[in-house]
Amino acid sequence: MRIRIGIYGYGNLGKGVEAAIAQNSDMELVGVFTRRAPQMVQTRGATVYAADELQNKKDGIDVLILCGGSARDLPEQTPALAKNFNVVDSFDTHANIPCHLQKVDEVAQKAKTTALISVGWDPGMFSLARLYAGCILPDGKDYTFWGKGVSQGHSDAIRRIDGVADAKQYTIPVEAALHAVRGGEQPALTTREKHKRECFVVAKEGADKARIEREIVTMPNYFADYDTTVHFISQKELDENHAGLPHGGVVIRSGATGANGEHKHIVEYSLKLDSNAEFTASVLVAFARAAYRLNKEGTYGCKTVFDVPPMYLSPENREDIIAKLL
Amino acid sequence: MRIRIGIYGYGNLGKGVEAAIAQNSDMELVGVFTRRAPQMVQTRGATVYAADELQNKKDGIDVLILCGGSARDLPEQTPALAKNFNVVDSFDTHANIPCHLQKVDEVAQKAKTTALISVGWDPGMFSLARLYAGCILPDGKDYTFWGKGVSQGHSDAIRRIDGVADAKQYTIPVEAALHAVRGGEQPALTTREKHKRECFVVAKEGADKARIEREIVTMPNYFADYDTTVHFISQKELDENHAGLPHGGVVIRSGATGANGEHKHIVEYSLKLDSNAEFTASVLVAFARAAYRLNKEGTYGCKTVFDVPPMYLSPENREDIIAKLL
Repeated sequence: MRIRIGIYGYGNLGKGVEAAIAQNSDMELVGVFTRRAPQMVQTRGATVYAADELQNKKDGIDVLILCGGSARDLPEQTPALAKNFNVVDSFDTHANIPCHLQKVDEVAQKAKTTALISVGWDPGMFSLARLYAGCILPDGKDYTFWGKGVSQGHSDAIRRIDGVADAKQYTIPVEAALHAVRGGEQPALTTREKHKRECFVVAKEGADKARIEREIVTMPNYFADYDTTVHFISQKELDENHAGLPHGGVVIRSGATGANGEHKHIVEYSLKLDSNAEFTASVLVAFARAAYRLNKEGTYGCKTVFDVPPMYLSPENREDIIAKLL
Repeated sequence: MRIRIGIYGYGNLGKGVEAAIAQNSDMELVGVFTRRAPQMVQTRGATVYAADELQNKKDGIDVLILCGGSARDLPEQTPALAKNFNVVDSFDTHANIPCHLQKVDEVAQKAKTTALISVGWDPGMFSLARLYAGCILPDGKDYTFWGKGVSQGHSDAIRRIDGVADAKQYTIPVEAALHAVRGGEQPALTTREKHKRECFVVAKEGADKARIEREIVTMPNYFADYDTTVHFISQKELDENHAGLPHGGVVIRSGATGANGEHKHIVEYSLKLDSNAEFTASVLVAFARAAYRLNKEGTYGCKTVFDVPPMYLSPENREDIIAKLL
């Protein structure tokens, strides 16, 4: 019997989950649940239901994958839905994870459901890279670099500037910093030394480009602490050359072993992703399989990627996994 | 109370384990157990016992880390010692892992001990990299490259050639292959296309270097299928520039997502290690912590890195790990 998955929320992430489920033959998609009018939602084939109909689907869904945003949706939705469903979310506001976990855990423990939170690539796969490497090399230092990739928050911030018609912002690791870290130097790096920002901006007809550029590069929190480059281009160029949402990054552990730390080791986990949302969705789907299994074996409550035996992510049986991959 | 560790076998790996335990304050080293005469074994400080004394230490050791070789030691030692101890080994003969696992599991299930086998970096961390990435990107292809690093088996093979005084062999990934894989091309690669071999050879006085070189590059299994370069150098140069045992490598998953596989993703896990043995030892020590915990919670039998929740590798408590690393 296949694992029956529901998707809650159908933006870029929900679309990615729909595509990912089609790549996993041990799963089937029950449907997409939306708070919008169902007839307004165009899927790639999945049935669309109003969110309210979920209450009638309790017995027909093994795991519900929550595809809302971390700012407003998930803090409410994950605990609410964990009352009746095994759930997986991609809650990514790092500082609020412990509080989110506690709220979800209370509900899930009581309801005997299993909730996996903060699943994706950061938090998620990058967190796992940090944990594994840090446990192996306790005397060492972690570095996380993001990019090259599109930051939607930063792109939005540029679009809000007067005179800007459209914009796309790329976060880019500084080569010299990466090089120093990979060389085992364990440098202390400032914000500016780690990442730079490159902006492609479409100015409105007659707008003051010098002022727009000044407003971007001096914008507190978003750009002021970085070396920021601004390119003014046409809407056509933006559409043709900057349409995607690629992202990625790298987690590096630089550590030392030996009687006097005389041997250096570099552990590196890196991602180059054509589609941020589809990769995140693929991680969610693999962990949905784990949530299903944890629940079947009686492991209830709110869990993270750190709690999941890696084997639980695979559709194959243990013997085959060991023979093929170990 | 600290986790009490015993080391069984004291070659490069055992020495690495001794050093690694000193980096982990939740552990203490009970002693080194050797089949040699104890007075002949010089440690960095650990007490040395004859292997026979292990039978008196049943209650004083939480986990025994087995540091013997995969060819002759571990196939016998791991099942034998799992009768009385929780054990961790680095059994690395990939093809024989399923059989080793079964033998160890029978003993450990009966004895209610916990045995973690094939722990290290390959098998071990590379296996985990393959499993995670493969579960996330089911439509894709795995690539493993080893090096740049010293292969001891290949170095030994050269040393056995008539006229060779000493030698060191480096396995090196072919840049063009790495580049193609990282570019998302999913090429089919032959042995020769993936790795090349570089040999530094000290010839004996008056030996025929042309013959030695010919014997190396045509040696079946070891060199014939690779592009192999041979450099003749002095013993002094070998000692000064090729004394270490660095190694490393990279596991790459090249996969695609989307309705038509239109988005490419590259997941890469790489290691650059100054000391192969000390890094392997550090992985063993982290998993010894996991073996201890699995046993405490009643999980008996033979397990692999795939079975261990990542959290179990850390000395810190769950709340701190989540707050700091997720």
